[in-house]
Amino acid sequence: MTWEHGRCSGLTLRPTTAEDRDAVLAILLPILATGETYALPRDMTDDEAWHYWFTLAEGCWVAEQEGTVVGCYYLRSNARGGGDHVCNCGYIVAPEARGQGVAATLCQHSLKQARSHGFRAMQFNCVVSTNEGAVRLWQRHGFDIVGRLPGAFHHPGHGYVDALVMYQDLQAP
Amino acid sequence: MTWEHGRCSGLTLRPTTAEDRDAVLAILLPILATGETYALPRDMTDDEAWHYWFTLAEGCWVAEQEGTVVGCYYLRSNARGGGDHVCNCGYIVAPEARGQGVAATLCQHSLKQARSHGFRAMQFNCVVSTNEGAVRLWQRHGFDIVGRLPGAFHHPGHGYVDALVMYQDLQAP
Repeated sequence: MTWEHGRCSGLTLRPTTAEDRDAVLAILLPILATGETYALPRDMTDDEAWHYWFTLAEGCWVAEQEGTVVGCYYLRSNARGGGDHVCNCGYIVAPEARGQGVAATLCQHSLKQARSHGFRAMQFNCVVSTNEGAVRLWQRHGFDIVGRLPGAFHHPGHGYVDALVMYQDLQAP
Repeated sequence: MTWEHGRCSGLTLRPTTAEDRDAVLAILLPILATGETYALPRDMTDDEAWHYWFTLAEGCWVAEQEGTVVGCYYLRSNARGGGDHVCNCGYIVAPEARGQGVAATLCQHSLKQARSHGFRAMQFNCVVSTNEGAVRLWQRHGFDIVGRLPGAFHHPGHGYVDALVMYQDLQAP
C-alpha cells in the first residue's frame, strides 16, 4: 500500500454486493452498538442493519485494501416527491483503517456518484455534534452546517447533545 | 358551531381508527396531489398514503365538526436510537374548514400528546418556505426555525425553494 498526499492510494472502491454482507456488518454493527454516531438502534439485528444500509440504498460502495473491506457507504434519496433531488449518505470505516483517509475517499466518491445519479444536493440529517472529526471532515468536503437541533441526540457518554444538519449544493461550480 | 377567541369550539378530537380511512384519505390525497407542501409522491396510492399517515404513526387523531372529519394529524418518532426522544407530526385540514383555527387546535393537541408520550422535542424536517401560513402558525406555537435547506424542495409553481427545519424543545417551561 502506498500513500500520496495523505490519501491511501491502495484503496479500491467497487459496488457492494450481497456477498459483502458479513464484511460490511462486521464494521457496521459495532459502530451502531456504540450508540455514539448514528440515530439507529444500538441492538439492530443483522437483517435490520443490512436492510437499512444496503437494501434501501440506491447506491452502495465498499472500499477495499488488499482484498479486505475496510469501509462502505450508501447513497439514497433523503426525501420523496418535491424533495427527491436531495440525497443522503452514510459512511463507515473499520477501526483498524481509521486515520488513513478512507472516510475522505468514500466521501469524495459519494459526491461524484450523487452528481452522476442526478442529485442536486446532499444532506446529512443528524450529525452528532460531539463527532467533531466527522463534522470537520464534511466541512472540508464542502458541507455547511445549515441547522442545529438542540439536544436532539442522546449520547451514551455525554447525555443530550446537539445534532447538526449539514448540506451541500452539488450544482455549485 | 360556536367561536371563542378565533378558535372553533365545536371541534372534537378523537383517536383515528381504521374506519376513518376514507375520510382521512379524502383530505390527504388532494393535498399530496398539489405537491406544494409535503415531500411525498404526488401520486401516492390509497394504501401507500394510509400506511405512511396512519400505520406508521405512534398516535393519530382526527378533528370532527358536527360528525364530519375536517382534519387529522399523526405523531411519531422522528429518528431511532439516540434520536428517538424527538417526535415528528404531520397535519392536514380539509379545504372547507381552513381559516377556522383547526390546524392550530391540532398543533396544540399534538404538543400535549407528544409530552404525554414522553417526547422531549418536536421537529419538522421539511417545512416548505413558500408555505408561509404554516411557518407562521408553527412559530406562534413555539417552533423555531433552526435550519434552512437551500433549494431542497421542488415546488410545482415556484421551482426550487428553500425548506426549513423547525424545532421545539418540549421541556422548556
